[in-house]
Parts: sequence; structure tokens; C-alpha cells
Amino acid sequence: MRREDLERLFEEVRSGSCTPAEAAERLAQLPFVAAGDVLVDTHRELRTGAPEAVFAQGKTPQQCADAAAAIAAAHRRVLVTRANEATAAAVRARLPGAEWHAAAGCLLWRAEEPKRHGRVAVVSAGTSDQAVAEEAALTADFHGAVVDRIADVGVAGLQRLIAHLERFRTADCLVAVAGMEGALPSVLAGLVAVPVLAVPTSVGYGASYGGLAALLAMLNSCAPGVAVLNVDNGFGAGFLAARICQMARRLHP
Amino acid sequence: MRREDLERLFEEVRSGSCTPAEAAERLAQLPFVAAGDVLVDTHRELRTGAPEAVFAQGKTPQQCADAAAAIAAAHRRVLVTRANEATAAAVRARLPGAEWHAAAGCLLWRAEEPKRHGRVAVVSAGTSDQAVAEEAALTADFHGAVVDRIADVGVAGLQRLIAHLERFRTADCLVAVAGMEGALPSVLAGLVAVPVLAVPTSVGYGASYGGLAALLAMLNSCAPGVAVLNVDNGFGAGFLAARICQMARRLHP
Amino acid sequence: MRREDLERLFEEVRSGSCTPAEAAERLAQLPFVAAGDVLVDTHRELRTGAPEAVFAQGKTPQQCADAAAAIAAAHRRVLVTRANEATAAAVRARLPGAEWHAAAGCLLWRAEEPKRHGRVAVVSAGTSDQAVAEEAALTADFHGAVVDRIADVGVAGLQRLIAHLERFRTADCLVAVAGMEGALPSVLAGLVAVPVLAVPTSVGYGASYGGLAALLAMLNSCAPGVAVLNVDNGFGAGFLAARICQMARRLHP
Amino acid sequence: MRREDLERLFEEVRSGSCTPAEAAERLAQLPFVAAGDVLVDTHRELRTGAPEAVFAQGKTPQQCADAAAAIAAAHRRVLVTRANEATAAAVRARLPGAEWHAAAGCLLWRAEEPKRHGRVAVVSAGTSDQAVAEEAALTADFHGAVVDRIADVGVAGLQRLIAHLERFRTADCLVAVAGMEGALPSVLAGLVAVPVLAVPTSVGYGASYGGLAALLAMLNSCAPGVAVLNVDNGFGAGFLAARICQMARRLHP
Amino acid sequence: MRREDLERLFEEVRSGSCTPAEAAERLAQLPFVAAGDVLVDTHRELRTGAPEAVFAQGKTPQQCADAAAAIAAAHRRVLVTRANEATAAAVRARLPGAEWHAAAGCLLWRAEEPKRHGRVAVVSAGTSDQAVAEEAALTADFHGAVVDRIADVGVAGLQRLIAHLERFRTADCLVAVAGMEGALPSVLAGLVAVPVLAVPTSVGYGASYGGLAALLAMLNSCAPGVAVLNVDNGFGAGFLAARICQMARRLHP
Amino acid sequence: MRREDLERLFEEVRSGSCTPAEAAERLAQLPFVAAGDVLVDTHRELRTGAPEAVFAQGKTPQQCADAAAAIAAAHRRVLVTRANEATAAAVRARLPGAEWHAAAGCLLWRAEEPKRHGRVAVVSAGTSDQAVAEEAALTADFHGAVVDRIADVGVAGLQRLIAHLERFRTADCLVAVAGMEGALPSVLAGLVAVPVLAVPTSVGYGASYGGLAALLAMLNSCAPGVAVLNVDNGFGAGFLAARICQMARRLHP
Amino acid sequence: MRREDLERLFEEVRSGSCTPAEAAERLAQLPFVAAGDVLVDTHRELRTGAPEAVFAQGKTPQQCADAAAAIAAAHRRVLVTRANEATAAAVRARLPGAEWHAAAGCLLWRAEEPKRHGRVAVVSAGTSDQAVAEEAALTADFHGAVVDRIADVGVAGLQRLIAHLERFRTADCLVAVAGMEGALPSVLAGLVAVPVLAVPTSVGYGASYGGLAALLAMLNSCAPGVAVLNVDNGFGAGFLAARICQMARRLHP
Amino acid sequence: MRREDLERLFEEVRSGSCTPAEAAERLAQLPFVAAGDVLVDTHRELRTGAPEAVFAQGKTPQQCADAAAAIAAAHRRVLVTRANEATAAAVRARLPGAEWHAAAGCLLWRAEEPKRHGRVAVVSAGTSDQAVAEEAALTADFHGAVVDRIADVGVAGLQRLIAHLERFRTADCLVAVAGMEGALPSVLAGLVAVPVLAVPTSVGYGASYGGLAALLAMLNSCAPGVAVLNVDNGFGAGFLAARICQMARRLHP
Repeated sequence: MRREDLERLFEEVRSGSCTPAEAAERLAQLPFVAAGDVLVDTHRELRTGAPEAVFAQGKTPQQCADAAAAIAAAHRRVLVTRANEATAAAVRARLPGAEWHAAAGCLLWRAEEPKRHGRVAVVSAGTSDQAVAEEAALTADFHGAVVDRIADVGVAGLQRLIAHLERFRTADCLVAVAGMEGALPSVLAGLVAVPVLAVPTSVGYGASYGGLAALLAMLNSCAPGVAVLNVDNGFGAGFLAARICQMARRLHP
Repeated sequence: MRREDLERLFEEVRSGSCTPAEAAERLAQLPFVAAGDVLVDTHRELRTGAPEAVFAQGKTPQQCADAAAAIAAAHRRVLVTRANEATAAAVRARLPGAEWHAAAGCLLWRAEEPKRHGRVAVVSAGTSDQAVAEEAALTADFHGAVVDRIADVGVAGLQRLIAHLERFRTADCLVAVAGMEGALPSVLAGLVAVPVLAVPTSVGYGASYGGLAALLAMLNSCAPGVAVLNVDNGFGAGFLAARICQMARRLHP
Repeated sequence: MRREDLERLFEEVRSGSCTPAEAAERLAQLPFVAAGDVLVDTHRELRTGAPEAVFAQGKTPQQCADAAAAIAAAHRRVLVTRANEATAAAVRARLPGAEWHAAAGCLLWRAEEPKRHGRVAVVSAGTSDQAVAEEAALTADFHGAVVDRIADVGVAGLQRLIAHLERFRTADCLVAVAGMEGALPSVLAGLVAVPVLAVPTSVGYGASYGGLAALLAMLNSCAPGVAVLNVDNGFGAGFLAARICQMARRLHP
Repeated sequence: MRREDLERLFEEVRSGSCTPAEAAERLAQLPFVAAGDVLVDTHRELRTGAPEAVFAQGKTPQQCADAAAAIAAAHRRVLVTRANEATAAAVRARLPGAEWHAAAGCLLWRAEEPKRHGRVAVVSAGTSDQAVAEEAALTADFHGAVVDRIADVGVAGLQRLIAHLERFRTADCLVAVAGMEGALPSVLAGLVAVPVLAVPTSVGYGASYGGLAALLAMLNSCAPGVAVLNVDNGFGAGFLAARICQMARRLHP
Repeated sequence: MRREDLERLFEEVRSGSCTPAEAAERLAQLPFVAAGDVLVDTHRELRTGAPEAVFAQGKTPQQCADAAAAIAAAHRRVLVTRANEATAAAVRARLPGAEWHAAAGCLLWRAEEPKRHGRVAVVSAGTSDQAVAEEAALTADFHGAVVDRIADVGVAGLQRLIAHLERFRTADCLVAVAGMEGALPSVLAGLVAVPVLAVPTSVGYGASYGGLAALLAMLNSCAPGVAVLNVDNGFGAGFLAARICQMARRLHP
Repeated sequence: MRREDLERLFEEVRSGSCTPAEAAERLAQLPFVAAGDVLVDTHRELRTGAPEAVFAQGKTPQQCADAAAAIAAAHRRVLVTRANEATAAAVRARLPGAEWHAAAGCLLWRAEEPKRHGRVAVVSAGTSDQAVAEEAALTADFHGAVVDRIADVGVAGLQRLIAHLERFRTADCLVAVAGMEGALPSVLAGLVAVPVLAVPTSVGYGASYGGLAALLAMLNSCAPGVAVLNVDNGFGAGFLAARICQMARRLHP
Repeated sequence: MRREDLERLFEEVRSGSCTPAEAAERLAQLPFVAAGDVLVDTHRELRTGAPEAVFAQGKTPQQCADAAAAIAAAHRRVLVTRANEATAAAVRARLPGAEWHAAAGCLLWRAEEPKRHGRVAVVSAGTSDQAVAEEAALTADFHGAVVDRIADVGVAGLQRLIAHLERFRTADCLVAVAGMEGALPSVLAGLVAVPVLAVPTSVGYGASYGGLAALLAMLNSCAPGVAVLNVDNGFGAGFLAARICQMARRLHP
Repeated sequence: MRREDLERLFEEVRSGSCTPAEAAERLAQLPFVAAGDVLVDTHRELRTGAPEAVFAQGKTPQQCADAAAAIAAAHRRVLVTRANEATAAAVRARLPGAEWHAAAGCLLWRAEEPKRHGRVAVVSAGTSDQAVAEEAALTADFHGAVVDRIADVGVAGLQRLIAHLERFRTADCLVAVAGMEGALPSVLAGLVAVPVLAVPTSVGYGASYGGLAALLAMLNSCAPGVAVLNVDNGFGAGFLAARICQMARRLHP
């Protein structure tokens, strides 16, 4: 249930087209909806401005499809992350129009296009970082940001980075995705005046320790203006970037 | 040198009140100013929108005072962090009007009040977290945010937290400061629709490992909308929170 | 051999219905029983009040079935944990009435219902934590507690948690199961006056480090009244919770 | 404010000896009392059955004395932990009857003796573990348990341990305090039928890593019936042990 | 080449039955023998008293068989560790009399029985530790010790441990193998006057961290007389135990 | 009480020069002696062949002196480790003949010279490792070994190491003490046929992590015949080396 | 594009055989070439003296083949590392003359032999380290060094090491590859006057922690003249060794 | 003793100006010289091309002065690192001309200027990294390199870095010194064709973990051509850089 739905309900009560008893009944379902095995927190959008996403890892395709359908019914849009092919098939059987982005493991379905606020530049260092970067990009797009993808701009080739300086400086928020030594956010934050959300990835080997090297580097950035997400957490970065963009003065049609 | 100064310089050249040679001379000093032993990056405000701060730890009082005076001259404001009493005295000898906040270890000096955008709520879990929280609050204030301080609202007493719900929900950005188990940002992010910047502190003992427990907890927040700063990095959180607030539509007089 | 059996044996010797030699022979088997490849410590119930459980991981189905049958013969009840389908089939071929709980990987068999003391509330944060929570619940039930299961009450949705406050406050012991940032036990312990046993789970990714983040968070709980079990150790929590309930004044029929 | 006080207040309202307005005024102060710089959560005893303790580390002697006096006034008892000599002097200036236990760093003050439930055996491995053990013992005593102290029974001399077997087996809860390899709780839990709360200490050197070795050993105990506290957290163990004893059927006069 | 062979060679030169040139040719092969892909250090027995063992992990069955055959030819005995079925088959095709111990992953071949010195007691805590314990036992046996195996004597059941006290006290060296909390060596070392070699195993889950918990516990043993091997290094313990037994005064026929 | 004393006591009973009652009285003190604040385990020599040592760290000078005097009375010898000047003074006030080795922090007192078995070579890599090496040497000497000290033979100068080869090869046990990369035991174990006890030291900086680098290196020695002690645990190595030497066939006058 | 190509282009412009417009067009492609899915940084050779290598891990065979072909076209040589059989087949379909080194996972293709500078000795400790050593050797060869391979010279058999002393001392750069305790670089650096590049490998088990033990040992080398690469990073060592050899005075035909 | 000295000695023997017996006597002192408490490895220069340096940390001023004087006598130059004021005074009392560099903690003394080969650029990221950078610079200078110091060029201000590009590109070896996120070597190695030696420093706080963050980042550099030294090991970097420069073709007068 979205805030608009709630306001409409109160309007119906006020105008008499809905009795208080009927209204109470409809609200009684608000906090949770049982969708097959899974409880869906349909109240969350009211509190936090965004519906629950379906984190597919560790759930069966059936559970994901049930949850996605329930959220779609309540919120008119749904995002599924960390999905595999089987999950994608199960969800699309229930929500035929859902887009399936295999490389990022994401499914998106929405009944209508969102109004868009602000622009997020999703910047990634290497080819192997792109799955995480794309999860961030799709999540930001889903939550209403315009997304600009800039890939393969690792710090070992500064000329590539500087070539895109204008795009970095005119975004409303940067998401910087990097594995290995994780230096990209520090370099970016020294060049721009917008928030930088840093996502370490588990790309690397040996003493990268599954992304720990990049995580620590990003937490110790010598340039202010950087905050850090969990390793491989593209979803979290895209979500927060879109939230920051909600404040942007520019409105994209 | 601030952007306004730069524009004024070009205007003077255009109007003839300054010759190109004079202008070139003034710009020649732009990138660095040698202030005693320390090189000050006076170009930074143009690139990133904020002057360099003085991180006093590991510098002598003299070096801090030199750097602070140079930045104050170039930018008409300066912030010194991680200062002790000796540093405070040295800085105030050079910048008599500088405010000294002993608990937070910060000095602020500005020639005029900034225009203020947005409101940052700095929320802290326990009494011992307040030095870090205050560093965040002063930094956000310095960079133009209105700051609302809410202390002692650890998750062991939810009634205290919920009592302040309205203040959390109406801020433009939250800074959540906590040591020990670091649960505060997760609980907050489940209640609000604004960005949450999480700062783990080194408060605790035994298996807190100097803030590692809180840091990991915050990186693994089950509620989206959270990004994390380095342990005890109140400065970084206040800086980024103010940057996010630059986008806020509300202007505070 | 249970304490009742031992007392009965001494009574038979006293009354003359069993000669000392016969009694000695029966006690000679007491400390260990060889069950196929495995030695079973049948003396344990006398010392610690509970028969040995069969930890199936790393044992063959045959070894598990042998051990389970030997324990069942000596103690009239047996619990098998961390079992898979093959183990379940082997055990049930020997103990046909054994209940198989596939999601939790547990088998329970008992000749009669236990007398029940106290009530344990097993509270879990997310869907993925339920296997561990169910292991805790079945273990507590097996050892004589009444069990109340409360799932999906993570701290990102406090309203769900608070909806169950009465059930938390009236239990004799809480088991709190959570992965990711592991904040659930801290929040619970601030709301109740009963012991809280915290079980971190390996649910999460990236900087959760296989449950380390949750483990450290729980060890650093800011609310007193919490003690912590190993990562994913639902068995240990259920066992200790039931032991604490042995002291409860309420007796459940 | 204790539950008895609250019930008495309602009784006064019912009988007319207190007007509802007066009652409301008295309750208005309930959640917090400002005691000098520190907010005291006087509501906690109602929720969790125990008043807030004062954790002196990181607070000034003055702050500790203010908080202790406020809690004493509201709850007729107070416990201060991790105190040093200066704090002890400041507290005793305000609460002259407070007992000062220098080795454990604890101050206790109570207006009357508690009713006692159950018996806690506090068992420690080595001489150097005794400060932590004593913090546990005093805390359990403060919260109403009868306490039995058993020191210097490390596993390198099993004969000492076995000499005390009867005391271990007849307690209602064991607190096992050990540094170095932390084996004591495992050995104890194999010998008794009561809950064992394990407290690792930072005693040791080299690869003890400040108590990490003992902490990990205790979390991996091969004997069920053990739960673990933070390194050096004697307070937490004593608190939880007393809470478990609240359920004990035996009442000590 | 064994020391006896070397002495015989010099004797032949002295007596004239071998020319210096022939002797030089035979010694020229001494340091290394190429066995298929692998260089075998046939000089090692002269320096260290024991031939090189074949560590099969990471080698092909063919490489193992070549190395084993070369060592057998040079030293009249060979030990292969960490072997699987394919390696076992390849080795036995070359050395038909080799014994294959599947549970321990070891192959032994010797042309004659060694003279035996001393007795090693290999003590293990749990069923899952037995593969490592058996590797230790076979290695000690191979290098000339009499071996006494004592299994399933974890510290959670002290009565089992104490039942074997005589066997522990009369051995010349103990090898103590344990996973989980790793307390066995500390308890043993407090009971005996012989060297204790401690082998942590990777048995456990969660916070055992692949044997780290046991390793740290053993390094921090509160009882002197313990030294520690790498996690799962049964070979190293058996080797060193046999070396220590070389000094034992008792000679076993 | 030493084994000789115990046998003499039984002889006196047998011969009638001591009544059973008197004997019982003398034995009643056996397990523990209270020495001031400290309980001394005087039974330990009977069980493990060596009296308890006094580990001075964390004890007051008075406690150390009391314990040392009690052990000296019961065992006619005593070793105090990790002592400082104040402790040394207190012990020597009670045991005037005690030798004080300031660099190693050890005090030795014995009523008579021990019979000596075997020879221990204590080998150290660098100048800074000598405090630990000397603790090992004194401990081995105290427990009856002949000790040969070989210092400054780090692997960066192999010629120094090889110059002492004969001394290494003819010892009965080697103690190898090294910090930094901890390579010394591996190199030694490839050159000798005797047991090598490896002691990592906390000497180093940066990524030595207080001896962790050396500890891990020693646990992973590619040469068999090495077992490892805790970081800086010279006492443990000297103790175990002497124990191994008890078996040596050579008797030193 | 190589530096020679660039100089030739400028020469053509100077001489008039190429118009500035044509030259600009050819340079426009300089920074990147899109090769199928992958962007190839063809500018790198100009900046750093070496073309980009293809790191095959995490790329499809098709992507690797496209990238390899593009680099080969631009630079007349290409190196592919961390390749498997499928990648090898795909690359060789495009570059028929490419050499495939299966054990090292490397493919090399070059249109002509490089001029060779200096000699790199690649020294490895054990059989299992050879894949990494061979990656280093092939990389150094590819970048123009003469390579001398010396295998199986672990520190447990110093005689093998010393046998090759002349080859070590006359190289221009050593690459020392070792797992387990990682002592080889320290021993080598004490014997030679040339740079030593140390490569830890993930060979080992238990407390080797995937190469961490060797990595820390190498970082703490007691002999100066050593620098360290990432775990298993043979490529990095071979690359840097060849770069160092560029300076060597000797030129190999 | 330097190689020149050795060659002169042989020449003297050949010409008859020195008898073989005298020559033997002079060489007999070669391997070690006892300088007070410390053995000095005067053979090292012959083997490795450089005399031993004196690492003052953990040595007394007297020991340092003795060692420095002995080395100076044998090699006509000496370097002392990690010295404090007391050590400096003691050394200069013995070697009056020694230069004392307080910020870097280094003393240099040489009888004559070295012939210089190659140029080392020592590049550092922040003010706090300069002590380590200066140790590297002085060490490289001492060993015969020309040194170019470039400070305060952290990656947060790329314009400063790029301003010095020519100096980086024309050096023979770069030493890159950085704490915090340690990104400097990656950025440099993408810009130059010379070896980059990376030195992490312990500068930082919180999750820098004493330089671990920078260390891991440098080991994971995405740009080839980088090798890494221990945290704060400026000496090692300067030493190796000078060694690499020995090969440089340019000779500096």
C-alpha cells in the first residue's frame, strides 16, 4: 500500500463512499501479507518510502514468485535481486512483463514509469565489477533515478577517468564500484562536489580476501565525501543513491 | 579561493579593472599555498565545493596554526579537527575568533555565517559516543547544514528512540553514531525515508575490537538506506551529510 | 540409563529381587555402549541430566542409525541433528516412529511425552534464519520445554517486533536467532526480564564473514541479560533454554 | 521507580488519596531523570526487572556520582562497575554507605537486603582471572543471588576441580571465568546439569590475542549447556546468572 | 641411501673392492634422484635420519607412484600421505606390498620391520578427529615407535579420560588430537610427565574457523609440556613423536 | 613434595618410625599449600615430574615471594619467570641464594644441583630475540638439561648457521627462537635428526603483528620434526626440551 | 600502438606523406579499441612501456580471444594469463601461432622475438609452487628477459640451494616463489647482491591460510633487498623482473 | 671489508708485499667482528654488496655506537636507522662526522662520497608519511642513488600528482609511500615505465588497522609493475631502490 492509496482511503471515508468498518478491514491487512511461505511487509513503503525488495538468494523460485506477486499487487512495482534463471522463470510466469537482467541477476516489474529525480552515475573500475555495478544501476533506476553507466575506468588508466570528468561532476550522486585495491572512490571524491557511495567487490585473488582489501581502502579514503556499502552490495548503493536524488532539484520527465 | 572569487576575477578582467597579467599572477598561486611547513591545497574548494580541513593529529600546533591561517585567508572559513589544547591555543592566537569545542577536539572559524540548506539529525547511542557525534555535528554545521543533536538513544531503550521519531523523519539526512553492537543505524533506517550515514565508534571493550564489531554490523544492516564511514570518523559523516543537504529544497535563513 | 532406572536397580538390590552380582553386571555396561563403530556415552544423562545427542555431520548414515538406536534403548528417547535425507532414512529404518524435520535437519524419537517445564520463545529475524531457529525449537521441545515460535521479526520493522511483546515478556527464556548485523538480541533484551540466548547465523554475504559480524554484535550487546552461542548453533541454544526452563515454577501438563 | 511503587501509586488513585493529576505529574518523570550531565533510564526496572547499572569507564567521577545518586533515589539500590579510586570517593561522598570493592572495581549500595533466589557458583581458573570473577560475583549478589566463589581450579590440575564437584552440581547456575585456552567451561559442562555461563578473560600473552583464544574455545565447547559472554564481561555473567536464579524454586532467607 | 649403505661403500673403497672412481660415480647420484617428474631428495635420510615422505596432495597418481618407487629403492621403505584411491592404486601397482589405510589416506611400504623404540599414545577427542589421529599413528609406527590408539576421550566426559590414565602416564610421548575447543592437550599435560604434541583439527563449524579456535587454545595451554603442530598435521606429530621416542631407553622387540 | 620424599615416608611407616596417623597428617597438606594469597599446587611434581613455576606477571612482588618460598620449601627448588626488579628483590629477601637473571626476567633457586640428562641447544636468530632465548635456556637448565646457547644465527647469514652445524647435530633437542619471518626452525630441521621446538617472538614491526608472522611460518614449516610454542614462550620451550632430554641416554655428571 | 609506430607517424606528417587530418584520424583510436565486449587500453604501452595483458579469469573464451586479437593487432604481441583449455582453444583459433602453456595457464603470441635485456632467475621451493613460478617465467620471457628456472630448492634442503649459488648471484633479478612458511626469499637475499621479488603461493593447508603465512613471512624478511607480490601473482613478479632487467647493461642477442 | 679491499689484499700477496700468513690472519677476522655486545657481520658486503645497517630499535645507545663504529672501521661507511636522540648522541660521540636526521631517525656516516648510479624518486602521499619517506630517501642516498623527494601528492588531488609527471617518468625507480587507503602506487604505476616500490605506512585510524588497509591495497594493485614492502619499512624500499639503480646506465658524478 502506497501513501497515495492511504490518502485516497481516508478521502473515501470522509466523503462517505467507504464506511469506517470497511476502511478498518482494508487497513487490517496493512502490516503483513502472507504470500505463500513468506510474510511480506507491505507497511514498509509508508514508513520508508520504498516497498520491500525480494532478495532471492536462499529462497526457492516459488517463494520469490509469491513474494514478488504480493508486492506487485500492493505497490504496483517490484524488484527482485540475486536471482538465477529458475527464479527468473518462476517470477515471469506470475508477472509476465517483468524485465530479466541476467548479468546482474535482477528482475524489474512496474505498472507505470516512475517520476524521475536526479541523475546517478554508476562508475566501475573493471570488467569483472560490472555485475555489481549493474545491480546498482538497475536498483537506482527502479527507485526513480536517471542512471548514467561509466565502465572500465580503473585508476591504472587515469586518462580514461579524466575523459569522463564532466559526467561525474554533473551527476547528483556517484556510485563507485571497484575490487582489488579499491582506489576508485578516493580518486573520484577528489574531483567532484557530489556524494560518492563506494561499493567494494569481491573481484580479485590472494590478498584481496574476497573484497576485504577494497573495503578497508574505501573506509580509509583520504578524500572526504565517501561512504561505504557492504562488499558486492550494488543494491544498497543504488537504493541509497536514488534516495539522495529524491532531494535533487532537477526533475527528469 | 572560492568560486565567487574566481567569477569576480573574470568579471574584473572583462571590465578592464584588472589586467590579464595581474589576473594570471593571482591565479598562479591557486593550486597550493605554502603555509609554514605545510602545503595547503587552495584549489580544492573549486573542485569539490569545500575547502581543505586541517586534521591536527600528527601535526605540531605551529603547523596547524599556519595551515588554518592560510585556509582562512583563502576561503574566509576554516575547520580544524582532532585538535588538543595546545593546538587550540596556537590556532586561536592566529585566529582570535575561532570557537574551541574541547569535547569534540574541533576549532571553527568563519568570517560570516553560511547560507544553510537542509537539516541533519546527529543521533548517538551512548554517552561515550558523544565526542564522535559532536565532531559530526560541528562539521555538518560548518558546511552549511542545520544540525539537530539527539543523544543517548541506544537500542536497549526503544522508548527513548521512538519518542524522537518525528525529528528523525523530518530531517534531510541522519548521522547515526554507535559503538558496541552498532545496531542503531539498522533500527533507524527501518523507520525513516531519508539517507542514514552510520559511524561506528571505538567505544566498547573485549570483542568490540576497537569498533570492528560495530563496523561489521553497520555494513551488514538488514535495512536498506545505510552507508558506513570509518570507525570514529565523525568528520566524514558530517561532511557528507552536509553535502547531501546541499540538494535539499528547504533553505534555512 | 536414566536416574530413575538407577534408583530402581538399587531398590531391587535392597529388596532382594536382584543379586549384587546381577546388579554389578548391569552397571558394568554403564559408561559406554559400543554401537557399531561409535561409542555411546550412556553415562551422560546421569551426570548432566540429558542423554547424548547424535551430531550427524561427518558420520555415515549407518553410524548415525547405530548410535541413535543405542541411545534410544538406553534412554527411551533420542535426538539427531544436522542430518540429511540419507541419514533420516537410515535412522527411521531402525526407529520407525522417529519424526523427520527436513528443514531443520533433525530427527526426534521418544517413547513417551516428557513432563514439560517452562516456555521458550524462539524468535528469528529473517526467513533465511529459520533452519537454525527450528533446530533450536525442536531441541528445546525434545528436552521438555513448551516452545513458541516467532519468525520474521527483524529490527528493520520494529512494528512486527512490538506486536509480539506480550509473548516475549511471558516466556521463561528467549532464543534470539539472527544473521547479518545481529541486532535482534540487543533490542529484545531491552524489552524483557527473562534470559536471552543469542544465536548468530551465517546468513549474509560480503562483510558478514560467515556470521562473524552477527557474533561480534551479539557479544557486544549494550543490553545486559544476553549470552551467546556459536554461529548456527541452534541445538546449543535450545538445549540451554530447556535447561533454564527446568527451574521454571510453571509446570505444563 | 520499582513495580511496587507503581502499584502503590495506582492504589492511592483508586482510594482517593492521590488525585489523577498528581499521579500524572509523578509518572511524567518516569522515563528519564536528568542527573547532572547524564540521563538515567528510570523506566528500565519496570521493563526488564533491574535498574540501570553505572558503567564508570569513560565517565567522570562527578558523572558517576550523579548517576548513582539518581538511581539510588529511584530504585533504593545501585551498582557501579569499572570504577577507580577517584570514582569510588565521589560516589561514597554522595552515598556514604556504599561498599567499595577495589579489586573488582565495583561499588554497591542498597537500602535493604534483597530477597534471595537460587545460588550462583562463580568458578575461576587462575589467580589473574579473579578481578573478572569478583565483578561477576558482586553483580550476582547485588541482583539477589546467593554466591559461592571457587577460585584457582584451572584444568591443568583436575584434582582441584573434582574436589569441588558437589558445590558445582548443587548450584543453580555456574559462571566459569578463564583466560588462556579457556577450557574450564567445557570441562564443567560435562560434569553438571545446570546452566554454565562462560566468561573469557584477557589474561594471557602472545597468541591469546587479548582473550580471543579463550573466547573462541568457549564458543566451540564440545559439551552442551554453555553460553558465552564478551571478554572480561563479569558484570554480564553475574547479571544473567541472577536472572536465571530468579526462577529457582529454592528461596534463601 | 641410508647411513649403513654409505659406511659399506667407504669400507669397499678401503678394502679395494671398489675403485674410487666407481665410488664417486655412485655418490654422484646422492643428492637427488629424478623419479619421473619429481626430484627425490635421497640425501635427506643421512642428514635428518628419515627418508622423505610423499605428500600426495597436489601431485598426480603417476608422480606419487614414481616418487614412492624411487624412495623405496633408495631407503627400503616409504610413506605416502594425503593419498586418495587413485593414488593408492597407482602406488600399489608399483609397490604391490604397500598397505593402504583409506580412512587416514596413507600408504606404507617397508622391506623389513623397523627396530622399535618407545611407545607413542595417540589420543583423540571425537569421532571426526580420527582421520588425523590415524595419520599420526601410522606415521609414528612407520618411523619406529610402538603406537597405542585411544579414541573418543573428549573433555566433556572426564571419566573416559581418567579411565586411561595409566596408558597416558606410561607412554614415552603423547599425541593429542582435537578440534572444536581443543582442550584435550591442556588436560592431558596436567596429568602426565611426558611430552605432549598437540594437533588441532579442522573439525567444528561456525566460530571454529577451520581449526583456528583449537589451534589458539593449544598454543595458550595453561599446562607446560605442550607443543603444537599445524591444523590437521597428523603426519608432523607422528614424525616428531617417533623422533622423541628414538631417545627412549626401552627397546621394543 | 618430591617422589623421593613420598617413598621415604612410606618407608618410615613400614619401618615403624612414623605412625600411620602422623603420615596421614603429613600427606593431608599435599594437594595445596596456601602461601599468603596464593594457593600452591604442591601435588604437581608427583603428577607431572616438575614443581609449579611462579609466573610473576600480574602478581605482586609479595605474592611471588610467598609462592616461591612455599615451593622452595616443598620441592627444594623454584623457578620464577617474567619477574621485574621489584619482584626479584622480594624473592631474594626470602630466598637469599636465588640467582637473578635480569635480561631474561628469571629467578632460580635450588638447594642442590640436579642430575643432568641430555643437552639442549638454544638457538636464536637476532639480538632482540635473546630475552626469550635466555628464558628458555634458564628453564631447561633448571629442569636438568645441559644448555648450549648459540645466538645471532639468523637465516640472512647462512655461513654463521653452518659454522655451528656440529653443535646442532649433537644436541638432544633444539630450541629455535626467532621473530620477523621465523624461518630459523625450518632451516634447522632440514639439517638435524633431533626434535626442534620453535618459539616465535614478538620482535618485528608492521606486518609482523606481534609475532603472528613468525608463528604462522613455524606452524607451516616445510621440514618435519618441528613443533611450536606460543609467541615469546621461552619457558614452555625450555620446559619441554628438558622433558625430552630426560629420555636421553647420555647422563651428564 | 607502440612508440616506434608513433614516431613513424610523426615522421610521415613531417615529410608530408600523411596529412595532419589523416594522422588525427589514426590517433583518435589511440586510447581504447573496442574488441567485442571488451575495451582494450591500447594507449598503455606508450605510458608504461608494455601492452595490456589479458587476465582470463572471469572472462569468457570469446572475450579473451577478442581482446587478445585486438592487442596483437595493435602491439604485435600478446600475453594471456589464468587461461583454461577452452580459452586456449578460442585464442588459438584467432592467433594460430600462440603457444599454450597448460601448467601455467598462459598463452603467448608474438610477431617477432624481443631484444633481450638481463637475466631473471625464477626460483621455486616445491613442486606445487611450479604453476606460479612458470607464470612468472613466461611473463618475464614475454617482456624481454632471459629466464633461468631453478625448481625444488626449498630451505629444508639447503644443499640443493647452495648448489645453484652461482646462478643466483649472476642473475640480474631473482623471483623467489614459495608457499608454506615462505622462507626462501630471506635465505636467498642473504646470499646475493641483486633484487629479490618474493611471490607467496597458496600452497599449504591449515594455518597457511591460503598463502597468508608465506605472505607475512616475506614481508618480514630479515634480509634487505626483498619486495613482495600478491599471493600467487607470478605475472606481477615476472613483469616487474623484466622491467628491472631493462636497465641491465648486458644485452642478450 | 669491501670487495676493493679484498682485491687489494690478493694483489699484495701476489706482489709479495704481504705474506700469505699475514693475509690469512687478516682474513680470519672476516666473518664476524665482536663490537662490544654485538656481533657484526662484516662479511655481508662481500656477499650482498652492502654493509650491515644498524637497526637501533631494541638496542641500547652503547650497543648501537659500538656496532656503528665497527662497521665504519670495516666498510668506511655506516647507516643507523630507527634511532632516537640518545642513540644519536652516543653514535656521534664515536663518529663525530655522522649526520643526524631527527625526523627520519637516521644517522649517516661515510668516509667518502659514493659513486652514484641512477635516480630514485621518493613520492609520498601525506604530511604524516614523511618520516617513512625520509628514511627511504636517506637509505637510497646512502647506497649510492641520486634521490628526488616529492611530497604531499595524495590521490585526492590528482592535479598535484600530474604536475610532477615528468619527474616520475624519468626516474630509474619510484618509491611510493602512503598510509590510509594506499592508492598512490596503483595510480603511479599506471603512468610510468619504471619499477614502483610501494611502502604502506601506519598513518590512519580506525579501520586502517595500523597500515593493514594500505598494505592490502598495495598488494592488490590493478597496475602491474608494483612490489610491496612491510608497513613503515622505508629502509627496505630505499635499499632495494638503490640496488635496482646499480643497473642504471646513467652514472651521476
